Amino acid sequence: MYGLTLVTLAVLVCSSLVNGGKVLVFPLDGSHWVNMNVMIEELHARGHEVTVMRPSDTWYIKEDSPYYKTITISAAGFDKDNFGEYIMETLNMRRHGSSIWTRISIEYDLLKTFYQMTKQGLQTIEEVFEDTKLMQRLHDAKFDLVLTDPATGGGVLLGHRLGLPLVFNVRWTIQGEGHQAIAPSPLSYVPIPTADLTDRMTFIQRVKNFMFYIFTYFQVSYVLDPNYKPFVRRHFGSDVHYMELFQAADIWLMRNDFTFEFPRPTMPNVVYISGFQCKPSKPLPKDLEDFVQSSGEHGVIVMTMGTLVEKLPEDVTEDIAAAFAELPQKVIWRHKGKKPSTLGNNTLILDWLPQNDLLGHPKTRVFVAHGGTNGVQEAIYHGVPLVGLPLLFDQQDNFFRMASRGVAKVLDYGTVNKDIFLEALKEVLYEPSYMEKMKQLSSLHRDQPMKPLDQAMFWIEFVMRHKGAAHLRTESYKMSTIQYFSIDVMAFLLTVFLVAFTVLIAALKFVWMKVFSGSKIKNE
Amino acid sequence: MYGLTLVTLAVLVCSSLVNGGKVLVFPLDGSHWVNMNVMIEELHARGHEVTVMRPSDTWYIKEDSPYYKTITISAAGFDKDNFGEYIMETLNMRRHGSSIWTRISIEYDLLKTFYQMTKQGLQTIEEVFEDTKLMQRLHDAKFDLVLTDPATGGGVLLGHRLGLPLVFNVRWTIQGEGHQAIAPSPLSYVPIPTADLTDRMTFIQRVKNFMFYIFTYFQVSYVLDPNYKPFVRRHFGSDVHYMELFQAADIWLMRNDFTFEFPRPTMPNVVYISGFQCKPSKPLPKDLEDFVQSSGEHGVIVMTMGTLVEKLPEDVTEDIAAAFAELPQKVIWRHKGKKPSTLGNNTLILDWLPQNDLLGHPKTRVFVAHGGTNGVQEAIYHGVPLVGLPLLFDQQDNFFRMASRGVAKVLDYGTVNKDIFLEALKEVLYEPSYMEKMKQLSSLHRDQPMKPLDQAMFWIEFVMRHKGAAHLRTESYKMSTIQYFSIDVMAFLLTVFLVAFTVLIAALKFVWMKVFSGSKIKNE
Repeated sequence: MYGLTLVTLAVLVCSSLVNGGKVLVFPLDGSHWVNMNVMIEELHARGHEVTVMRPSDTWYIKEDSPYYKTITISAAGFDKDNFGEYIMETLNMRRHGSSIWTRISIEYDLLKTFYQMTKQGLQTIEEVFEDTKLMQRLHDAKFDLVLTDPATGGGVLLGHRLGLPLVFNVRWTIQGEGHQAIAPSPLSYVPIPTADLTDRMTFIQRVKNFMFYIFTYFQVSYVLDPNYKPFVRRHFGSDVHYMELFQAADIWLMRNDFTFEFPRPTMPNVVYISGFQCKPSKPLPKDLEDFVQSSGEHGVIVMTMGTLVEKLPEDVTEDIAAAFAELPQKVIWRHKGKKPSTLGNNTLILDWLPQNDLLGHPKTRVFVAHGGTNGVQEAIYHGVPLVGLPLLFDQQDNFFRMASRGVAKVLDYGTVNKDIFLEALKEVLYEPSYMEKMKQLSSLHRDQPMKPLDQAMFWIEFVMRHKGAAHLRTESYKMSTIQYFSIDVMAFLLTVFLVAFTVLIAALKFVWMKVFSGSKIKNE
Repeated sequence: MYGLTLVTLAVLVCSSLVNGGKVLVFPLDGSHWVNMNVMIEELHARGHEVTVMRPSDTWYIKEDSPYYKTITISAAGFDKDNFGEYIMETLNMRRHGSSIWTRISIEYDLLKTFYQMTKQGLQTIEEVFEDTKLMQRLHDAKFDLVLTDPATGGGVLLGHRLGLPLVFNVRWTIQGEGHQAIAPSPLSYVPIPTADLTDRMTFIQRVKNFMFYIFTYFQVSYVLDPNYKPFVRRHFGSDVHYMELFQAADIWLMRNDFTFEFPRPTMPNVVYISGFQCKPSKPLPKDLEDFVQSSGEHGVIVMTMGTLVEKLPEDVTEDIAAAFAELPQKVIWRHKGKKPSTLGNNTLILDWLPQNDLLGHPKTRVFVAHGGTNGVQEAIYHGVPLVGLPLLFDQQDNFFRMASRGVAKVLDYGTVNKDIFLEALKEVLYEPSYMEKMKQLSSLHRDQPMKPLDQAMFWIEFVMRHKGAAHLRTESYKMSTIQYFSIDVMAFLLTVFLVAFTVLIAALKFVWMKVFSGSKIKNE
């Protein structure tokens, strides 16, 4: 009975381990860091100790923080200068044409940028692996798990090297949207991101989706994967693939839910935490509140283009300001750079604005945004319809989802001008269905058994308590494509059937010949 | 702004609608009713009004209850007499041989029984549909939703006839395990129930699984579905299929989780509520507690064969009693019928036993069970390892899952005797891994963000608040198989590719001919 008591004791100790975990965070920079940071602060508040791997060329990750310790490693190649240049160039291209060739050329440039970033990122990890002192320190720290954003592979590789459970804070991975890596994604009703398709497609749309899939597949197989192959072979053995290491993650905290994503298959270890960064709005500073109140019954328009794009070209901002000037609403616009000459009295330009508090303000009628996931999910949380000016990356795709639900009007950055912008604003302001549908979407999003941030914390602590989440995780990724889709089994059964059929026919023929020749002899 | 205020008001009213819903329950009888009843009592406790459709030949559904009203309809054909006969016959067959032919013949009998039950069940629904007074009454009652167990189709059909949202309390459906109907279930790692396979299969096992799938498919298509076809055509139109009505359910409360099921794809509208019927144990009656305590350090064995099988044949009970008699443990055995002559002093026979309180007692070492889902999930909840004597239906399959996790020893009812039974008991009693692994499984099962019963209630009330759960529900089932698997798209793209290739070759040939004949002329 001593054994049993020990077991019971172990289970008890195990269950009570909630506080005092140790988490190693391998973040992605930029807007991805903004929401990872929300998770880190909450982990800290719950008594966990967080250590962040911080690249030397970081945009936002502070070296000293009351919430986490840092280990600074060499540059990740995701720096603001490189990236800023790419962004300005892309925006420029888009303003000068939106043909299919422009799109392909933008895609190509993006791929080239990602390729370079991946290369640089792996170089950084290589240096970490080779730094025996650092590796020893990481080992000795006895972390419970690695929390990472798998849009790049650093955290996955480091986690496996340290033999630690992996938790993902994920929306994108190196091969596209997060689900694609582990959940069955039938191309007949799961649209490939950027294809501008919903879960209900015509035949032609399904053909389009299929071709987008093929494109994505080749992109991953021939452009991004070749970066990882030699690295993984060198460090983990010749029969190991990056994809497997990555698919083995214990919990996927997906920055998504089904007010944003179309309904689709999922997996038991996927937890939806869309909007986990959102919180109720706080009162505005007095001057801003006065400005907002001065809008009267017309309400307020809020506009921001996110953290990545500091300023739009002058011709665009002139048009935007002129459009705003014609409306009776008040406008609060986060804008850096030259003040537009067309600016109206109703428009307040700010360097920075309290976005969450403004979106949660009852006077806010429309949010003009670029379509980053964070902003769109904040709009859903607060129930504010959108006018979209998507610029880069997944922004068009995010807005497509919102437009297909009737809660956003989306504009093409390549062709937007004053009239188009004004018309879009008026449509969302005065066609009540936008607000109605957004309120409905918001009420669906908020009606969950548990707050998304609490869900995230629960599952991170679950992984601490149970040293992973093996029972929720399929290992079907270890199969080849032929095995996974039972192609070998079908071929085998077909062969057996054909052989049996042939033998049967031969036997019947033989019997028939016997009988026939027999009767022939008889007849003779 | 008036419009907007109305919307806001509607959203507020909508969100606050938690209490006071009206639920129409269309249950399945037998053990399925036992757990549906748990849900009904909780709905009642939360202030909802429940009405139960009760067949006149019910086993357990009382006409008068403090928790629900009833509407008695004609016999469902699921009566104890018919079923009892089938069960005794099957058990008899199994005792006299366990060859493949016996198995097939048992399967055939089961199918015949289900076929008859389905026919009778549809007859009952037909009568309900034709009873205009009753239908009017059901319409006028303005129910919020239909809660049903879709192992038979009555609740689905009635729900659609009344135009109400559907919530399933489900483990089995007319075409097998619940997931199969709506979640992708790759045959390469999702074992078909009764195939005795896990999620990790060899090639031969995958072939077996594929063949079980084909068998199930034909069973549903040619034996069960033909019952529904004419009924659905008559009442819902010629282009409607039962499968579609059924796949359109809003929420699937699945009596399952991943301590029981192997990891597999799932859908956003599937909620896992395995063990929702479980609760902490209460103290035992004094005499039973004294008996349990008298076991000292050896502990107690609890045995019951469920509600469906009242008594085992005499030769089996004699062997079981004799085996128990040889152990130092105390035994509490729910047994009806003749007292075995081999009964030991350590064994207490009871007509009924407080199963939950006994399983939760710290002295309980082993649970000898038949493998009904309820009992197995209670064993997981309380962390008691199992010795299994599966008799019918899914019991073998339930135990296979437990055995594959090392928490149960399973016996073949066809061949069990005293020695085999005793050996199995000793193995589970004295090999510590059984208890260890069951405690681990139990701790995983209990470690959830929310109690399963609360989850069930949350999602039922969610459906009340939002009149369904459309955003969580794929409508991909409306596609044909060819569309679903993109076979048409692949055929189209292949054709385009081949035509393009042929044209290219022809063009090259043409050019080459031109050049060649040109040079020929030149040379001449």
